Amino acid sequence: MHLNIADVIPAYRDDINSALTHIYPQGPKSLTSPVNYVLNGRGKRIRPLLAIFVAEACGGKKEDVFSAALAVEVLHNFTLVHDDIMDQDQMRHGQPTVHHKWDDGIAILTGDAMLSLALKLLNKSPSGRRQQIKKFIDGLLAVCEGQAMDKEFETMETVSLEDYQKMIDLKTGYMLGLAAEMGAISAGRDEHTINAIGDYGRLIGRAFQIQDDYLEIFSDSSNMGKSLKSDIILGKKTYLMIQAHLAANSEISSAIKLAQNDFSKGISEIRIILEENGIKEKTENEIQSIITLTDNKISTLNIDKERLLYFSKLIHKRGN
Amino acid sequence: MHLNIADVIPAYRDDINSALTHIYPQGPKSLTSPVNYVLNGRGKRIRPLLAIFVAEACGGKKEDVFSAALAVEVLHNFTLVHDDIMDQDQMRHGQPTVHHKWDDGIAILTGDAMLSLALKLLNKSPSGRRQQIKKFIDGLLAVCEGQAMDKEFETMETVSLEDYQKMIDLKTGYMLGLAAEMGAISAGRDEHTINAIGDYGRLIGRAFQIQDDYLEIFSDSSNMGKSLKSDIILGKKTYLMIQAHLAANSEISSAIKLAQNDFSKGISEIRIILEENGIKEKTENEIQSIITLTDNKISTLNIDKERLLYFSKLIHKRGN
Repeated sequence: MHLNIADVIPAYRDDINSALTHIYPQGPKSLTSPVNYVLNGRGKRIRPLLAIFVAEACGGKKEDVFSAALAVEVLHNFTLVHDDIMDQDQMRHGQPTVHHKWDDGIAILTGDAMLSLALKLLNKSPSGRRQQIKKFIDGLLAVCEGQAMDKEFETMETVSLEDYQKMIDLKTGYMLGLAAEMGAISAGRDEHTINAIGDYGRLIGRAFQIQDDYLEIFSDSSNMGKSLKSDIILGKKTYLMIQAHLAANSEISSAIKLAQNDFSKGISEIRIILEENGIKEKTENEIQSIITLTDNKISTLNIDKERLLYFSKLIHKRGN
Repeated sequence: MHLNIADVIPAYRDDINSALTHIYPQGPKSLTSPVNYVLNGRGKRIRPLLAIFVAEACGGKKEDVFSAALAVEVLHNFTLVHDDIMDQDQMRHGQPTVHHKWDDGIAILTGDAMLSLALKLLNKSPSGRRQQIKKFIDGLLAVCEGQAMDKEFETMETVSLEDYQKMIDLKTGYMLGLAAEMGAISAGRDEHTINAIGDYGRLIGRAFQIQDDYLEIFSDSSNMGKSLKSDIILGKKTYLMIQAHLAANSEISSAIKLAQNDFSKGISEIRIILEENGIKEKTENEIQSIITLTDNKISTLNIDKERLLYFSKLIHKRGN
């Protein structure tokens, strides 16, 4: 029996949210409060959903991947808590960040404790635990390295698109790949399928990140606007800004300077430069071609692809 | 054949130090530099030595526990890097701390990456890996909770000795217990022996911590003096200060205030209060009685105890 994906997502998300509220009931209050504050946040739960959908697409069961799926979500939130300290971001998912609401020390510890909770969940995984633990450990190092590269880029004059792609693959792609792999492993699939599905997840992550870069500048939603300001101030290299520096270095540099003083004037200027130099269109095309690539990755696999197409559709939907 | 412990320690420590320099050869420079800086630091390597000695005492081999022993040392150093940020300590093992030499963001990431490296080492453990991973994950949460309690204590008016002991057991004891357990597990020992040896390690940790508290105030070595100043300023609750607050609250409070303005005058005052109220002597007795407890923990076990007595001797030696 096939349920419609749109129908199962809210139920799955509820299951995930409910489970997340139960993973750290007891401990020192200065730790349980911020940890549960984060776990009760309004994340989209993309990663555990991906893990579950991959498991089902591979003929596996939600129950068998659920603990590993939660582990990836907690790992993801651990990175957010620590990254928010480093980036000095004050808001996340519509609420104050941990270091902003409490302090840096509490936020460091909160992340550390969450990593331990993620590992606890993973260690309870009923199916394929050993392989999952290995992938998880590699994923943890990957996100640290991606974040390190991202911070290095802030103080660099120029960054190549190649290095940028390497960075987002490590920082964002790897964890979506990890989520996807958790599903395939829990369903007992072979190495070839696990790797192809991991690649699929990593590409989804790459498309997501480039789209984030795109929407941050071109979307009018207040959600995206919040981080834009801090990114401009920090001189964050994004897929679009790197190309702007390559194509029109002096214009974009003055526009950034302008944005630091008069944000809305500067951002209009930045948008015009990106459009006039064909960077807006090129980015739209790049996102589209990555989506095609993700579909190709799974086209020859003997799995129920319907459930996975949700994620490329999600990217389309966000873009419109 | 039994080698003298004093003879093997320098060789074992060299092996540990040498292995630590090889665990993170490649990655983004902003991460490899601080990680290797920490791993090349001048730690005493007590935890991996304990793991190896326990393994040998249990009839196991150094090679079988080596990877897990390194994992505990890297875990320990991860906690130091993050704790030093929170405590704003500028020196560690005679060199500037990571957050002081680089910045807070780099130090957060350095710790996170080290945790991943510790897990990688553990995941290569040839003997008893599954049990070791479980203990390791529990240990990680324990140290986070211990540090959280320690930070909570800073802003509390009074702390009970019972809560203090719980805190140091989590923050310090648990990881020495973990190191000891790694050895017993790698040697294939039964649950009862593993637990008794874990208790032994935790007690060693408790004695160490209380002795640290003691030496910080009563030792004249410059090593100890460094952290004392920041501890006094932060209002750290130690085994001795808690008792001083219980026995002579107004005197010790004025002495602390004095120390914040005139450090050497204040610290002399604090020493006098601790001596006059019998707290110095009580602490010496407490350390002695914990050592007796550790010896009792292993007295009935069928293991080569000689190798473990090194650690209680170490405490005696430090004290003199």
